[in-house]
Amino acid sequence: MKFFYSPGSCALATHLTLAEAGADYQAIRLDFAAGEQQGVEYLAINPKGRVPALVTDRGILTETPAILLYLAQTHPHAELAPLNDPFALAQLQAFNSYLCSTVHVAHAHGGRGARWADNQSSYDDMRAKVPQTMGACFELIENEYFKGPWVMGEQFTVCDPYLLTLTSWLERDGVDRTRFPKVDDHAKRLLERPRSRAAWDEHFA
Amino acid sequence: MKFFYSPGSCALATHLTLAEAGADYQAIRLDFAAGEQQGVEYLAINPKGRVPALVTDRGILTETPAILLYLAQTHPHAELAPLNDPFALAQLQAFNSYLCSTVHVAHAHGGRGARWADNQSSYDDMRAKVPQTMGACFELIENEYFKGPWVMGEQFTVCDPYLLTLTSWLERDGVDRTRFPKVDDHAKRLLERPRSRAAWDEHFA
Repeated sequence: MKFFYSPGSCALATHLTLAEAGADYQAIRLDFAAGEQQGVEYLAINPKGRVPALVTDRGILTETPAILLYLAQTHPHAELAPLNDPFALAQLQAFNSYLCSTVHVAHAHGGRGARWADNQSSYDDMRAKVPQTMGACFELIENEYFKGPWVMGEQFTVCDPYLLTLTSWLERDGVDRTRFPKVDDHAKRLLERPRSRAAWDEHFA
Repeated sequence: MKFFYSPGSCALATHLTLAEAGADYQAIRLDFAAGEQQGVEYLAINPKGRVPALVTDRGILTETPAILLYLAQTHPHAELAPLNDPFALAQLQAFNSYLCSTVHVAHAHGGRGARWADNQSSYDDMRAKVPQTMGACFELIENEYFKGPWVMGEQFTVCDPYLLTLTSWLERDGVDRTRFPKVDDHAKRLLERPRSRAAWDEHFA
């Protein structure tokens, strides 16, 4: 599979999951500063002009929650999701859906205000609110959704690399992550896993 | 199952899917104008203070894409998702993920600006951009993702009620939906299905 990413984007979650799944993949880095994600060549792969995108022998997949579930389903030996329990799987999907639709979106208002408004004063207003909104999201995760030792409990799942990805944004979002001891500890423990660590190093190389 | 909703919210997608699945459910309407979704009683059900929420005998589920997949998996006779094809299922999940993380979010900037900013001038700026952002989202759906006759092709899936839900917002978002003939026709055909029509009528009663 070919995997398209930009360092430090939400594609980090897919990168770590590819490694944890033991998948056979080639990582292709896009230069966002040069606008490669909006170039003709890449738009033919992902018309949204975003990452991640995963090119499989069946076709192209986008959207982190969909890619993560696909990797779990196609690499069942890695046991990255409770594939035989619809309720537990729905809890996993609900967590990842919250990350993509609420937490990632809260973060994006810090640097991507032009998606939703046109005036600099609006961008400044949005950026100023990010510590508050991201703080509220992680309070909810810490107090309501994180089961421990991993997000979904005893089983390491695709929720874990996805949470780590958003946790890694907190510092630049002006949120002190030590306010969330479970989340903070989770990020450290995850990077002690050899496959995730190797993928992290490849991602940021 | 108990299903909590507010009329015209994204919970409409779950409402229609419950009906299409032939599920046994009780629909409970929250009065958003009275702030019921932020009341102590409802926050014990969904700490996010949002709809939909589905109370099952295993526990509570939130987030539309997760609930829709759960209903498809627990009512397999209704054939609402390609459950035995991981790639096709990932395409379905990618579509629903795009709806929740990008399209719903674009719409929300019209009336929910206070989630991401604090000044009235920002809300006005955000609201003014909604016709553009929602129009761009539906162009992508019409031209790139809608397979026809249903979203995923020949099979009616949980993507269909979810798309109809967001299509139903276009008029108040200042977007002429006849610009998107496939999407416009889809909305009409979906409401000719007896179960969806009955759930729509219950939803808006």
